[in-house]
Amino acid sequence: MYLTRFFLPVLRETPKEAEIVSHQLMLRAGMIKQSAAGIYSWLPLGLKVLKKIEQIVRDEQNRAGAVEVMMPTIQSADLWRESGRYEAYGKEMLRITDRQERDLLFGPTAEEAITSIFRDGVKSYKDLPKNLYNIQWKFRDEIRPRFGVMRGREFLMKDAYSFDLTKEAARASYQRMFVAYLRTFARLGLRAIPMKADTGPIGGDLSHEFIILAETGESEVFCHRDLLEGAIPSADTNFEDDLSPIMDAWTSKYAATEDMHDADRFKKEVPEDARVSARGIEVGHIFFFGTKYSEPMGCRVQGPDGQMVTLQMGSYGVGVSRLVGAIIEASHDDGGIIWPVPVAPFEVAVINLKAGDEATDAVCADLHDRLQAAGIDVLVDDSNERAGGKFATMELIGIPYQIVVGPKGVKSNEVEVKARIGGDRETMAPEAALAHVVEEINRARVLV
Amino acid sequence: MYLTRFFLPVLRETPKEAEIVSHQLMLRAGMIKQSAAGIYSWLPLGLKVLKKIEQIVRDEQNRAGAVEVMMPTIQSADLWRESGRYEAYGKEMLRITDRQERDLLFGPTAEEAITSIFRDGVKSYKDLPKNLYNIQWKFRDEIRPRFGVMRGREFLMKDAYSFDLTKEAARASYQRMFVAYLRTFARLGLRAIPMKADTGPIGGDLSHEFIILAETGESEVFCHRDLLEGAIPSADTNFEDDLSPIMDAWTSKYAATEDMHDADRFKKEVPEDARVSARGIEVGHIFFFGTKYSEPMGCRVQGPDGQMVTLQMGSYGVGVSRLVGAIIEASHDDGGIIWPVPVAPFEVAVINLKAGDEATDAVCADLHDRLQAAGIDVLVDDSNERAGGKFATMELIGIPYQIVVGPKGVKSNEVEVKARIGGDRETMAPEAALAHVVEEINRARVLV
Repeated sequence: MYLTRFFLPVLRETPKEAEIVSHQLMLRAGMIKQSAAGIYSWLPLGLKVLKKIEQIVRDEQNRAGAVEVMMPTIQSADLWRESGRYEAYGKEMLRITDRQERDLLFGPTAEEAITSIFRDGVKSYKDLPKNLYNIQWKFRDEIRPRFGVMRGREFLMKDAYSFDLTKEAARASYQRMFVAYLRTFARLGLRAIPMKADTGPIGGDLSHEFIILAETGESEVFCHRDLLEGAIPSADTNFEDDLSPIMDAWTSKYAATEDMHDADRFKKEVPEDARVSARGIEVGHIFFFGTKYSEPMGCRVQGPDGQMVTLQMGSYGVGVSRLVGAIIEASHDDGGIIWPVPVAPFEVAVINLKAGDEATDAVCADLHDRLQAAGIDVLVDDSNERAGGKFATMELIGIPYQIVVGPKGVKSNEVEVKARIGGDRETMAPEAALAHVVEEINRARVLV
Repeated sequence: MYLTRFFLPVLRETPKEAEIVSHQLMLRAGMIKQSAAGIYSWLPLGLKVLKKIEQIVRDEQNRAGAVEVMMPTIQSADLWRESGRYEAYGKEMLRITDRQERDLLFGPTAEEAITSIFRDGVKSYKDLPKNLYNIQWKFRDEIRPRFGVMRGREFLMKDAYSFDLTKEAARASYQRMFVAYLRTFARLGLRAIPMKADTGPIGGDLSHEFIILAETGESEVFCHRDLLEGAIPSADTNFEDDLSPIMDAWTSKYAATEDMHDADRFKKEVPEDARVSARGIEVGHIFFFGTKYSEPMGCRVQGPDGQMVTLQMGSYGVGVSRLVGAIIEASHDDGGIIWPVPVAPFEVAVINLKAGDEATDAVCADLHDRLQAAGIDVLVDDSNERAGGKFATMELIGIPYQIVVGPKGVKSNEVEVKARIGGDRETMAPEAALAHVVEEINRARVLV
């Protein structure tokens, strides 16, 4: 991609309305634009990151055996009356009346919708276990939307729903998502810690939030320091094996959100030098809630003995759009965003210091074409901006590697390669620069 | 993918509520499930097709130089008041009031939203031309939703918006989308004919609908027979060249929708044996409307002479979810759907006639793994259903190639390969079957 053909409306000044760094940087980097309170358009740079995160989330859901569906944004109120949540959900639910005076709503979550699909589609225990997931825009009418995409009203969520015949099987489904989440966040360059959590309006008796530590976190969290270094299950983990050992290893040490925190237990179980108390951002939340929805909604299958069995369910959420902000909160400096390679909107920026100079243009075009042929996501800055502005923009938008091409260097067959992390610069031939960044990026893409 | 892990709730009987064949087949094949009038969930099989169509649409937008953004589903009413369309749009607009009593709406289209983004992000003629596109769920509160996804209320639309300094440049932008659409529909296995069309509530003075012919089409269309064989611009078309010759070739012969039809001209310009009058389905619609939105909304840039210039705009829609139905209308038989390879949910089905038989299972697993390694989308039917049911399901869901593996054949190192189109069957060694389907599919993937 060439910058002059792209759409990158960067801002030189920090917008006043943005309170936290991720919101400020996303606005400044031209990633998003507010369209109404808590509602954002994703501009090309932001959308590229969002899509990469979405694809990693999808990939790990598939690996864990979940199957993708897509439910509509608009749901019928009648469905929610079946579970009894329509009145209970409160003002966060965006309620809508259509031209025929039917009650609709913009889905804040989809337990009812998926249960209704499942009860009609599955009749026998032989079709279990199943886990269906959905990556779709949700709406929660927050009374005070803030922090950009971190607490927006319209947001992209991955929500998965498991259906099992027994509690024991449901626990195995829960463990598969637990492991999938450890892998998902690690692949996004995040260290997320599962913490025992309150179940809130979803209900149920077993729940974990996946929390990343960041100064701007919305709540206080407490955990054992060892969890900051916990082992991430490998890509060849067999999801049909018993995953209890992995979950046990992660849950045997103290970790709790504010709501579930027990100060006495924390002191008793965790040595003083291993006690971490910090601010945390929730990036995922998983629930086991048994028959809370299947019972009132009649989601049953025929069991092995011919008797009808009400299914055991769980649900598993990842805030896909929120993750864009969360990653920035965890990875930035004074110059701007520092994208982990797997979610970087572009992996390499080629900075043309003299656009219009034939020899310089030719080197940039050649690098562009060869990087693209190597499967690298590349952005060439072919604009007429001054060099300082170009450097500042690439720092701001956080591209992991820059190759700086100027007319003088071109004469001596030299370009400069700069890494966003650490800021190392090295001068080398274009050929060597190409080989170097391709190698570095291929290495960095496989984080887990 | 193995069928026992997938979610494919096929129906043996045709649901009474479905009037047209695509709606019937999508319900029977377990592709969609209605959740409210005109609102559908996409089950795994349907979602796979939807995603493949979306990706082809995206790919051709990118090729034509358009840049992807994502606007929210919920828009502010104030935006629509700026253009004057808020009151004018009528009851098809789903109007919403949030908890703070602010007027919102579920976007039926996004001319206002994109104009507001553009006017803030672009200041100079040097940043033009630009074309931004968006693939997002839209809502139109049809008084009588029907025909499944063909006339639903919530639907997935690709909408692109071009911004140019002059009418002449805007015409070139229009031509780029015209050519992109010819390629898009051809890649989907469709023969779409551009027809002069009415502009409706979008406005403007130049507009074409892209129409495919099908008995169940919603309106009557008229065209010269030669257009059924018009040349599709090749993949190496340079979108920076003058594309007038391509557009002229396609628009020089008579083609009009009902609204624009002129019976006298049709008779005069088209020889009797070349007159086609048929039912048509609209799959795309493009508009040039000049300053209709940019003028009231103040979308201007500084021109070369320093004066502010109001931009010339066009918009370009493709009904992505509607296309799933349109392709089925164009490609089915009594047995079910016949997917063109580029949009098939799976390209090959491996039918295990005796799941549980060790040797048969092993051949199926080997075919699965090797097809997957060759980049082929494969579904193995490893269920316990009887053979007849398995064949009927694969016919119904329209997988282009089947490899039938039974215990007898395995003993003599034979499987049967069957093509969905034409129904040709051939017995050969598994090795040969693998090579054959991989070759056929790779050939069929590149339609244009």
